[in-house]
Amino acid sequence: MKLGHYCGLFGVHGNADAASITYFGLQALQHRGQEGAGIATTDGGPIRVHADQGLVSDVFREKRTLELLTNPIAIGHVRYSTSGGSSSSCNVQPLYAHCGGIPVALAHNGDLTNKVQLRKRLENEGALFQTTMDSETILHLLAKAEGPDLELRLQSVLAELQGAYTLLLLTPDRLIAVRDPRGFRPLMMGRMGDATVFSSESCAFDLYDEIEDVREIEPGEIVSVSQSGTRSLRFGDPHTKRLSRCIFEQVYFARPDSKIFGRNVHRVRMEFGRQLAREHPVDADIVSAVPDSGNSASMGYSLESGIPLDRSFIKNHYIGRTFITPDPKTRSMKVKVKLNAVREVVEGKRVVVIDDSIIRGTTSLSRMAALKKAGAKEVHLRISCPPTRHPCYFGIDFPTQTELIAGKYSVAEIAKFLNVDSLGYLSEAGMLKCVDGERDSYCLACFNGEYPCATPAEIGE
Amino acid sequence: MKLGHYCGLFGVHGNADAASITYFGLQALQHRGQEGAGIATTDGGPIRVHADQGLVSDVFREKRTLELLTNPIAIGHVRYSTSGGSSSSCNVQPLYAHCGGIPVALAHNGDLTNKVQLRKRLENEGALFQTTMDSETILHLLAKAEGPDLELRLQSVLAELQGAYTLLLLTPDRLIAVRDPRGFRPLMMGRMGDATVFSSESCAFDLYDEIEDVREIEPGEIVSVSQSGTRSLRFGDPHTKRLSRCIFEQVYFARPDSKIFGRNVHRVRMEFGRQLAREHPVDADIVSAVPDSGNSASMGYSLESGIPLDRSFIKNHYIGRTFITPDPKTRSMKVKVKLNAVREVVEGKRVVVIDDSIIRGTTSLSRMAALKKAGAKEVHLRISCPPTRHPCYFGIDFPTQTELIAGKYSVAEIAKFLNVDSLGYLSEAGMLKCVDGERDSYCLACFNGEYPCATPAEIGE
Amino acid sequence: MKLGHYCGLFGVHGNADAASITYFGLQALQHRGQEGAGIATTDGGPIRVHADQGLVSDVFREKRTLELLTNPIAIGHVRYSTSGGSSSSCNVQPLYAHCGGIPVALAHNGDLTNKVQLRKRLENEGALFQTTMDSETILHLLAKAEGPDLELRLQSVLAELQGAYTLLLLTPDRLIAVRDPRGFRPLMMGRMGDATVFSSESCAFDLYDEIEDVREIEPGEIVSVSQSGTRSLRFGDPHTKRLSRCIFEQVYFARPDSKIFGRNVHRVRMEFGRQLAREHPVDADIVSAVPDSGNSASMGYSLESGIPLDRSFIKNHYIGRTFITPDPKTRSMKVKVKLNAVREVVEGKRVVVIDDSIIRGTTSLSRMAALKKAGAKEVHLRISCPPTRHPCYFGIDFPTQTELIAGKYSVAEIAKFLNVDSLGYLSEAGMLKCVDGERDSYCLACFNGEYPCATPAEIGE
Amino acid sequence: MKLGHYCGLFGVHGNADAASITYFGLQALQHRGQEGAGIATTDGGPIRVHADQGLVSDVFREKRTLELLTNPIAIGHVRYSTSGGSSSSCNVQPLYAHCGGIPVALAHNGDLTNKVQLRKRLENEGALFQTTMDSETILHLLAKAEGPDLELRLQSVLAELQGAYTLLLLTPDRLIAVRDPRGFRPLMMGRMGDATVFSSESCAFDLYDEIEDVREIEPGEIVSVSQSGTRSLRFGDPHTKRLSRCIFEQVYFARPDSKIFGRNVHRVRMEFGRQLAREHPVDADIVSAVPDSGNSASMGYSLESGIPLDRSFIKNHYIGRTFITPDPKTRSMKVKVKLNAVREVVEGKRVVVIDDSIIRGTTSLSRMAALKKAGAKEVHLRISCPPTRHPCYFGIDFPTQTELIAGKYSVAEIAKFLNVDSLGYLSEAGMLKCVDGERDSYCLACFNGEYPCATPAEIGE
Repeated sequence: MKLGHYCGLFGVHGNADAASITYFGLQALQHRGQEGAGIATTDGGPIRVHADQGLVSDVFREKRTLELLTNPIAIGHVRYSTSGGSSSSCNVQPLYAHCGGIPVALAHNGDLTNKVQLRKRLENEGALFQTTMDSETILHLLAKAEGPDLELRLQSVLAELQGAYTLLLLTPDRLIAVRDPRGFRPLMMGRMGDATVFSSESCAFDLYDEIEDVREIEPGEIVSVSQSGTRSLRFGDPHTKRLSRCIFEQVYFARPDSKIFGRNVHRVRMEFGRQLAREHPVDADIVSAVPDSGNSASMGYSLESGIPLDRSFIKNHYIGRTFITPDPKTRSMKVKVKLNAVREVVEGKRVVVIDDSIIRGTTSLSRMAALKKAGAKEVHLRISCPPTRHPCYFGIDFPTQTELIAGKYSVAEIAKFLNVDSLGYLSEAGMLKCVDGERDSYCLACFNGEYPCATPAEIGE
Repeated sequence: MKLGHYCGLFGVHGNADAASITYFGLQALQHRGQEGAGIATTDGGPIRVHADQGLVSDVFREKRTLELLTNPIAIGHVRYSTSGGSSSSCNVQPLYAHCGGIPVALAHNGDLTNKVQLRKRLENEGALFQTTMDSETILHLLAKAEGPDLELRLQSVLAELQGAYTLLLLTPDRLIAVRDPRGFRPLMMGRMGDATVFSSESCAFDLYDEIEDVREIEPGEIVSVSQSGTRSLRFGDPHTKRLSRCIFEQVYFARPDSKIFGRNVHRVRMEFGRQLAREHPVDADIVSAVPDSGNSASMGYSLESGIPLDRSFIKNHYIGRTFITPDPKTRSMKVKVKLNAVREVVEGKRVVVIDDSIIRGTTSLSRMAALKKAGAKEVHLRISCPPTRHPCYFGIDFPTQTELIAGKYSVAEIAKFLNVDSLGYLSEAGMLKCVDGERDSYCLACFNGEYPCATPAEIGE
Repeated sequence: MKLGHYCGLFGVHGNADAASITYFGLQALQHRGQEGAGIATTDGGPIRVHADQGLVSDVFREKRTLELLTNPIAIGHVRYSTSGGSSSSCNVQPLYAHCGGIPVALAHNGDLTNKVQLRKRLENEGALFQTTMDSETILHLLAKAEGPDLELRLQSVLAELQGAYTLLLLTPDRLIAVRDPRGFRPLMMGRMGDATVFSSESCAFDLYDEIEDVREIEPGEIVSVSQSGTRSLRFGDPHTKRLSRCIFEQVYFARPDSKIFGRNVHRVRMEFGRQLAREHPVDADIVSAVPDSGNSASMGYSLESGIPLDRSFIKNHYIGRTFITPDPKTRSMKVKVKLNAVREVVEGKRVVVIDDSIIRGTTSLSRMAALKKAGAKEVHLRISCPPTRHPCYFGIDFPTQTELIAGKYSVAEIAKFLNVDSLGYLSEAGMLKCVDGERDSYCLACFNGEYPCATPAEIGE
Repeated sequence: MKLGHYCGLFGVHGNADAASITYFGLQALQHRGQEGAGIATTDGGPIRVHADQGLVSDVFREKRTLELLTNPIAIGHVRYSTSGGSSSSCNVQPLYAHCGGIPVALAHNGDLTNKVQLRKRLENEGALFQTTMDSETILHLLAKAEGPDLELRLQSVLAELQGAYTLLLLTPDRLIAVRDPRGFRPLMMGRMGDATVFSSESCAFDLYDEIEDVREIEPGEIVSVSQSGTRSLRFGDPHTKRLSRCIFEQVYFARPDSKIFGRNVHRVRMEFGRQLAREHPVDADIVSAVPDSGNSASMGYSLESGIPLDRSFIKNHYIGRTFITPDPKTRSMKVKVKLNAVREVVEGKRVVVIDDSIIRGTTSLSRMAALKKAGAKEVHLRISCPPTRHPCYFGIDFPTQTELIAGKYSVAEIAKFLNVDSLGYLSEAGMLKCVDGERDSYCLACFNGEYPCATPAEIGE
């Protein structure tokens, strides 16, 4: 499964090596976005930005590029999607602009549901849009906002935004972190000596022994760090505590060693696997994962079911770097480049396969076929989340409902399509049990269609 | 001499190969800007832009990059200066933005004298600036302008601009060319079959036999080309005919084979050389040029004076591509990498050397010293323009007055500093005679300080 | 653990897409060598070679490079070490030369024990050596060999070689595969329609469904494929059946989905893990692998011991691409970039950790420390092979005996050095039991110092 | 005109910056070869080599590459042709090998007439050829040569070579320079403080003020420089003084500021132009050069004839860097990218055009046509050497006789083909007069077919 429109944020305030620390931080967050990367830094004077398409290690291939950014305050960004780009190298982040005369760099993770509406309004007012990113919309609002200081102007801007967003803003004298009131996306902060650090996921903090006092930025919180200290402001409706944390972070996006929404991701996935074994037991010889997405859940399934864990698929670790794709003729030879089904493991066996999700079904189809071709007697597919039936408007670029296989077909039909001997999805209730979650603290819209706030269609976009 | 802040424009409307034609056109204009290049194209749908730092051949190193731009309407840009760049790869042109919902790409040559004022006003109105180029100011004005069509909105924008500008604008359905009312910079148009082409200089048109009906865009003219035909509009004060064409185009910037302001550049420079011989004759054995800047004028001087032309300096043609510079130790060996003074030519000779200008004086100093070291008995330096004493606000990045050697010192003092046996500059009157020019049709401000319009300081910026 | 001097071979005879098939084959073998790659092809005319330092995907970054090699016969090579290189880009393979007027390309995996002796003899005879690869020695011998055809000349050359070698040779009309008489390194062949394919490991064959009739090249076998058919010749002493297959292929080098020396590597490693559990049981809460080297063995240990499998370490998948390394200051922050120990998994737990080997001990030291720091109550390290105490002369670039931690210290001392609560190595006998191997069919010299043939020192080099 | 198979050599012994000095030296010699470059250095230990295809500035793009070569002894090479390359990156120089156990790097300019014969003999003796360069043949001979020291072994090797060669050899403790007994190619030496420097042309010495005591390596001289001093040996037939210095160095190859065979090249070319004016006078309005090849000669013609010099063609200086070539469609638009004929200069004029040679005639044809198209009333072409009718076997890659236009057609026929109003070639006698040369001191074989030594055909190759 490969989903788009995803991002990772990292920031440092108050360390002379802020650019380097951010560089390594972004590498630890690389799984959140492989198509673009950038860092903006300042020492109180002008803001320097370097951002381009590619992996962090490509964008900062030359040490000199990083050295030119040496400064005590930095924010960085990795992004998945580079969609919308005519002038593509400008469609990466951090986005840099002068907002009412103040230089600002912005890194943004999420998706605004009222972005089209906001943009139309701004365009009618004569605003000039140079990218297609909704992050630019935020900066336009900030440029027009009024108020005695940047934090208060920002507060008034945030009141206009609907949907999912975590933000890092850099100005010559401060670093500001924001998490939307529903807390769709994670954003962590910590202390590193005298410096303050921010990261989408805790795994990036683990690079440094010195980082301590790690906590989540609260939903609806603005944290502003400057030389004169750290300031926390609240925004959003104080009367509601309803959260919409994205359960898909736990299912798929976050790195297993991260702590997201208070829980270790690997542990949660293992619990998903255990629960899956309870909900969909089956008589089989081995349990195995689709690597690496099913690794943690497969351990849980094996543990709960008592069926031994084995490796039905082996991954080719170097294939990701391939620039040359098989041409039609070679493709007709059915190149199987990413995962290899191991005959010696599966031949004659009843195999339980654990994956984290099925989106379009096409990849799963060829993998299940490979197992059968390698001699598996039975294939039982278990998915560590409920069927994904509805589009996401909060930062995951799911296909449209008609492209989502579970949007059109029943579980039985999907099992038939994939030609597996049985298929079991984790239930919504079972999933929530694993995170001790009340319905009201997670967004499950991609499973049940119950959107926590107005969708773009409802807003009239 | 190396001066900054210069640009070249090329555009095509109505040829399927517009991107390729623009690519080769930009190569012919490469002398007008070596630090950035870009092309924007459209076929009526979205605008595609590719622009980056480097030479045209570097920016479009891969044929694929150019192929992705294949479209019937194109504009291109080469630029000298990459100044002002935080997010440097975004500080190249064509600049792309949505102006009131319409996608527009803009390529700009020149410099606005009221740019700071305009930008401040726009920022106060909440406009978001993402680059430091004054070209962005033009787009902001356009985004806010009102009027029944783009051309009329553009007209109202141009009424606000002061200073030097030639523009090419691309929208999904048209290509618009603009030249400021004083005609500071050149801009030509021609017909290529059914297509219309634009270029800063005619030398780029000479690549194609098919181009005909070549004429200058008039000062104060907007030419708009769309499928429904070509439209010409005038703007600016109709009561004045005073022009401010940049004489430095003739002296230094333009390619010798171009026709600028109605005259072939090589011819003009040869006349400068002849006039120089009349104004500053000297008894000498040979005349020679500082290659390539003095080539044409040296022919004129030789012809008028009867002193034979010879080659005192030989150029190393490959040195421009050097990325590695001599380190201090090697530099102490006095590496003479660009021009080599030929002992066999100058030894025991009285040499007249022709160059186009002296800016700081440091380069001239080392060249004159090299001639003496190679054995020249006498060195007589002749400069094919008057002393450059004043900064330019119309597109040439001269040093400040205190850095200009002629801004601080008399001709006699400069001669002494350069240790030459005599030094002669072309007179202002002599120069104008060569172009049959009235004082009112050229800008000579860098020589005499008489600025044709208010300077930034006068505007209060 | 990172060991050098390793290689992978792939070859195709008789398919128009031989270059592409070899390209993807080399990618599947990339784990056998990441520092150089090359492909040589022919269509009966001249041999074309492209080889350079870097990953396969770097060396053939441009599709055009591969297209220029389009030809029906191809051999390819990936190599680990680029040691010995003054003119480094020439020290990659396939090596190309004219041997007695015949163009030959050679790809070689292994290490000759008498290479210094052979090279000295050849140099004394006036041979010109242009690389430091022992592969060049083989070509020199071939250039001087006499005999009615290439295969017979090759046979006489092979009689002179001692040590480990598998070879692929390409001439304009044939592809020849060779495996040394003791069978140190693996080499497989298969049929792909009318074509014949060769590969160091079977995992590269698995890319193509069409490949069938897969078998090992026998120790002491020459297979020569030309348009007139396939010919197999034997060489070496017919009276001995003693083999010296490298057990380290099973322990470390080969990909888990390959079948090496008749056995699936993952299965063998799992057995190593089971046997390890029998030999070194321990009371613990979880078993976990050092990813990815201990993955398969950890499954076996968990299965045999009944202790649940968990993930103590999470790998950063993108870190391999880092070109920038932490500078001293950052390093003092103890950047832990490759593996992250997961506190939520190990805190308060008694952890069994499975790895495949300990070479110098420094990497293990920092990993075991990370587990303790993350809160592990006890750490029990289990190694799926015996202590590696002796250098290898057959293709693995082990450090010298004094650098090998097990070459100097007892198991108890190593345990103390690593600060683990217990340390257990697989026994030699236990290891052989897992491969049903008699002592005489595997080389175990790195464990027991019993070299199957004369070492360089014994030869007098 | 673009001729192949040409090279430039540069070397330094005894300066800590030898690699940098060689780098800049090669840049000054870049006109002698643009397709490959390399440097080999040593400090008494191993020889380091870096060489690749491309310009000097491309091959040493990264300062680090050059820094890795820092050593007190260095030789460098630029080459024109990369012909013969299967493994192309190995077909550049300096060529590195072990000759009888001694590491040697060799840079070679010239062409051996008996190279095929020598190679065949060596191959029959079992020698392994890894490149197609005849330089490799020299190293093979050296590897087999016997004698008490390297210089004497080299002497015996040189006795076997026929044809043109200048050589620089680097061993760990010395730098050896060689020029063939007929002196086909130039090779200079000089003193730079305590260091000794070598260069194909003196223009590279002019970079450094410190270089003095410049002299030619004598034909048939070996100069060997080591820490213990400089040694000069003679080889070749002492009874003949006949030289075969290549007159084409003066006509075309050498840089105008070099002193070749005792004469400044620009001066010689100017004399060619004067003599041409005497031999082929014509009534005309202007004289102009085909830049840059005709620049010096055009000055001589103008001076002698009294016809004013002008610039009929202007060169596009940036076009050399174009990687993208016009595609067929664009080409049909007749892109004229390199030289632009200036209408304002030639219109209605009788133009004398000076070029250095006509090889195939196709380039001249299109240039003369461009002049007529730009309005020239008459075009009189003058060539500053005699008709080139015969192939060169001494280092210039002329086309075969049937491809040489003067090999097939009379001067009158060529004039008709080129559609010029008159055509005049410099006479052989006139040419020799300009260099005060006796027939016996220059090779004029390309004009008159009188080869100074046996041709490959005569040798039976």
